[in-house]
Amino acid sequence: MKKVEGVFAPIATPFGADGTIDFGRYAENLAKFDKTGLAGIVVLGSNGEFTMLSHEEKLDLIAAVRKGMSADKVVIAGTGCESLKETVDLTKGAADRGADVALVINPCYYKRDLTESTIENFFIAVAEKSPIPVMVYNMPGNSGINLSSALVTRLSAHGNIVGVKDSGGNIVQISEIIAGVPSDFSVFAGSGSYLFVTTVLGGKGGTLAVANVAPDICAEIYALCSRKEYDKARKLQLDILQLNACVTSRYGIGGMKAAMDLAGFFGGAPRLPLQPANNVMVKDIRTQLEKLGLLGKYRT
Amino acid sequence: MKKVEGVFAPIATPFGADGTIDFGRYAENLAKFDKTGLAGIVVLGSNGEFTMLSHEEKLDLIAAVRKGMSADKVVIAGTGCESLKETVDLTKGAADRGADVALVINPCYYKRDLTESTIENFFIAVAEKSPIPVMVYNMPGNSGINLSSALVTRLSAHGNIVGVKDSGGNIVQISEIIAGVPSDFSVFAGSGSYLFVTTVLGGKGGTLAVANVAPDICAEIYALCSRKEYDKARKLQLDILQLNACVTSRYGIGGMKAAMDLAGFFGGAPRLPLQPANNVMVKDIRTQLEKLGLLGKYRT
Amino acid sequence: MKKVEGVFAPIATPFGADGTIDFGRYAENLAKFDKTGLAGIVVLGSNGEFTMLSHEEKLDLIAAVRKGMSADKVVIAGTGCESLKETVDLTKGAADRGADVALVINPCYYKRDLTESTIENFFIAVAEKSPIPVMVYNMPGNSGINLSSALVTRLSAHGNIVGVKDSGGNIVQISEIIAGVPSDFSVFAGSGSYLFVTTVLGGKGGTLAVANVAPDICAEIYALCSRKEYDKARKLQLDILQLNACVTSRYGIGGMKAAMDLAGFFGGAPRLPLQPANNVMVKDIRTQLEKLGLLGKYRT
Amino acid sequence: MKKVEGVFAPIATPFGADGTIDFGRYAENLAKFDKTGLAGIVVLGSNGEFTMLSHEEKLDLIAAVRKGMSADKVVIAGTGCESLKETVDLTKGAADRGADVALVINPCYYKRDLTESTIENFFIAVAEKSPIPVMVYNMPGNSGINLSSALVTRLSAHGNIVGVKDSGGNIVQISEIIAGVPSDFSVFAGSGSYLFVTTVLGGKGGTLAVANVAPDICAEIYALCSRKEYDKARKLQLDILQLNACVTSRYGIGGMKAAMDLAGFFGGAPRLPLQPANNVMVKDIRTQLEKLGLLGKYRT
Repeated sequence: MKKVEGVFAPIATPFGADGTIDFGRYAENLAKFDKTGLAGIVVLGSNGEFTMLSHEEKLDLIAAVRKGMSADKVVIAGTGCESLKETVDLTKGAADRGADVALVINPCYYKRDLTESTIENFFIAVAEKSPIPVMVYNMPGNSGINLSSALVTRLSAHGNIVGVKDSGGNIVQISEIIAGVPSDFSVFAGSGSYLFVTTVLGGKGGTLAVANVAPDICAEIYALCSRKEYDKARKLQLDILQLNACVTSRYGIGGMKAAMDLAGFFGGAPRLPLQPANNVMVKDIRTQLEKLGLLGKYRT
Repeated sequence: MKKVEGVFAPIATPFGADGTIDFGRYAENLAKFDKTGLAGIVVLGSNGEFTMLSHEEKLDLIAAVRKGMSADKVVIAGTGCESLKETVDLTKGAADRGADVALVINPCYYKRDLTESTIENFFIAVAEKSPIPVMVYNMPGNSGINLSSALVTRLSAHGNIVGVKDSGGNIVQISEIIAGVPSDFSVFAGSGSYLFVTTVLGGKGGTLAVANVAPDICAEIYALCSRKEYDKARKLQLDILQLNACVTSRYGIGGMKAAMDLAGFFGGAPRLPLQPANNVMVKDIRTQLEKLGLLGKYRT
Repeated sequence: MKKVEGVFAPIATPFGADGTIDFGRYAENLAKFDKTGLAGIVVLGSNGEFTMLSHEEKLDLIAAVRKGMSADKVVIAGTGCESLKETVDLTKGAADRGADVALVINPCYYKRDLTESTIENFFIAVAEKSPIPVMVYNMPGNSGINLSSALVTRLSAHGNIVGVKDSGGNIVQISEIIAGVPSDFSVFAGSGSYLFVTTVLGGKGGTLAVANVAPDICAEIYALCSRKEYDKARKLQLDILQLNACVTSRYGIGGMKAAMDLAGFFGGAPRLPLQPANNVMVKDIRTQLEKLGLLGKYRT
Repeated sequence: MKKVEGVFAPIATPFGADGTIDFGRYAENLAKFDKTGLAGIVVLGSNGEFTMLSHEEKLDLIAAVRKGMSADKVVIAGTGCESLKETVDLTKGAADRGADVALVINPCYYKRDLTESTIENFFIAVAEKSPIPVMVYNMPGNSGINLSSALVTRLSAHGNIVGVKDSGGNIVQISEIIAGVPSDFSVFAGSGSYLFVTTVLGGKGGTLAVANVAPDICAEIYALCSRKEYDKARKLQLDILQLNACVTSRYGIGGMKAAMDLAGFFGGAPRLPLQPANNVMVKDIRTQLEKLGLLGKYRT
């Protein structure tokens, strides 16, 4: 099995003028990412607008990512859905299309029904039925539910659950997870703003919106930590905080896609009702990219 | 156009042992509801586990409800999805299958992108493209986003937006909506626990989980208010508070389905990962039903 | 014992240019309130800036209110502090100065320590030691802690706890309290925006910031409900929603004091760091007062 | 001026059986802390139950700490109150009694009035009037208000504001503060669970409940980071997570005081209504102390 370690980009889904997926642009982005220091791609993460896509579109995107990336790059596919049945179906489909790992978010709509034990049973059931290793995806900002360190620690004992992507940003929770899980369990930062501290604590990398825009800087932060060059890593981390905010908390998906366009990838507009970044946002994003020397860096 | 007024049951979706929809049981429940004082049925509400269902299952359920209810009963179909495209497609499909009104929840996953203006544009776009009138669905407990009274008031000016179902339970917000919308705009309570106060304030009824279990009591509360018999309505309202809690905040979907079974409808188990009510819950539910004389009341 | 029923103004504390309490202005306001339909005054409520005042200032204010109001008007004094000792001391001091009832907010700073049972013990201890009846004060918007309907229902069994002021605005919680407490327990609305529905449900009145500005309208809403003239009461309730928002959620203490100045009472500036309303706020407040015919109404 | 750097214990306030402060026990604790690696003491922090104390008790405690600690140890006094006037009075009193720095929490009761600009004005006014340097205290868990990184960064430009204690635990916010403030501005971790990551990012130390129980381990984490021995520091950090939880989020003030008793300091019971730890809690705390070799370590 491939190691689930390093920095991953949760790749954006490009749409054409008619609202359908533009697979040509997608392939171009993939070719560029393949040459960076990224360990691989997360397809159908939150930044891939997975809730906006049909089951068929999702399967096609997984196949395209596997085809577009070198064999040594790891492909992680987001396969969590509200029902167990659809999650298992999609996970099997992802495995068939070459995904190495399934990244599974917890169901979240029925918040009163989704107790910790119900969610635990859900992850166990998915892990039992999945042909590929499962990574737990905690995304409380969007899902409204937090997966506690105690829950993740318990899940880490299952042989087919190999890691967690924690996008909650609670560094104490991340610390507790690292202190409690086996040493080969991959604890990933879910945002570029705490990649450095997660790694210093013993995390194995991250899946970061900002890696869609600044893949090499993100990969470098992780590499520097691996070489124990913490002061350099720390400086890079502080340098990217503002850009990271632009493509996450400040301007969302629209901001991230605008930043991709400015950096030389194809971003385009999100699927409606999500909106592209407006001029004020683009100006801020451009400023942050300029400071980091990223304006047009990935243009071919 | 039919009047959107009175009490509606957000009908549960019955599943068989193999996890597929049991349309036979569904028809039996519909036949029973058709004889009650309910004004109609909401199909694909939160209590119908709509996020657990495929597009095709949703269309089949709408058709079944229309077929199962008398022509004078109003059929409201939940058609909100995360993307505008899927929402419009499902709304058109619902209209084709005889739904009278589309109940549209706001997209909610991308909380940072879904500003009030983005959500407003979403509802306007759906209303423009929908062949049937649209009702706005505010469900902050599950969606994590509240639709403000100012937003709902602005939306009420659109010719094809005819009402709101507010499940937030903020009675000040409901009061502000009633004070701000046209008098023929239908403001619905989204839970049986505030049906009485919503109606006394000038609301037009409600869509209530507890109406799946106690349809006639709920309809009676509304009817009493219409006849200005407020003291009797008030007493019934206070009487059903505990049962209402059992089928909503206390035990969720599993609790509601267990209560349906005990009252004489078919409830069954929710779709996984949701769990059926356990014995402790069932005991509490049974006690509440007994107090109201509802145990087995709808058994045939 | 006097009946704790009807509408109360949580009187503002007027400050002079030097930041000390202006007792002359206070007496003038009291004289005006004494001639309205209010059942009495709440001194040292949240709107009285009680957290900004020293123990001595608090005692002086209670004495001034008792002196300034007719004997038949009920004086309720806010006496809750973070420690039990200070709460009991202040409650005894309030009784000595003629307060009829002590309104006790729960301690709230140590949120992790203040479990429901710890808070329950606190209220029981205060009630045991208080020479005057105690009213429980739930103010989650400021305290960050909600007192559940189950807790309030349990507390209502204590002989020296005679009511609750619920400023949380959760009408289901208020309904559950009314359904669970003895019929002579006074359930008060804590804001003018839900005075009508609380009363229709069986509540006994309210303590309302807006009663500092529109005392007679508020008293009239309650009187109309007592006479079962619900349609008139409902209309008045909807009419005051915007003014109520201006003096509570929209502009806070500064807004309420500005509204008092415009209505003909003395409001003045709050104690620092709280700020007076700015011009934009004052304009909005003036508009709302004009609509209700309250501009200068209480000027002498 | 003394450097504000290193690890501080937010010293507990010991109460006798009659509920008054036990200054003898306090002096004994101080004598023990004076011999540890701590940089100094925070008196009247949240863990000192400052909201439970009178103005006079507060002044006496500050004097006792100054008297009980060596001259080279830094004394930081918590002086924030709800009103500006009382805050300034207490700050001046603290300076008179030898406090080196004033730790000022923002007012928090009137959450609707306390906008970011009102809070900013408050801190500026305190800093202008304080005879000693001011440290900003962010404690959203208790206050319900978070001080943003933008606000703290702006405040760091004031000549008499020398640092921030951030107890929010949001490591991204702490990172943004460190990236934005002058290099001599002291950014302190507010809990022992993120002392290591705060220090690795460039913070200057922390004020930690757990330093009341494990002062030397906490000081060692900071010292190791200063010597760039990150792997050792990381290990100690992970080791104290469970004990840290016991004396903060898990069992609150009561838990911290019980842990002090077990470690050999005097803890005793908190002031009512706060409760001492129960037997179940004590057992957990004892287990954690044993693992770290702290049981009775500071007994004389």
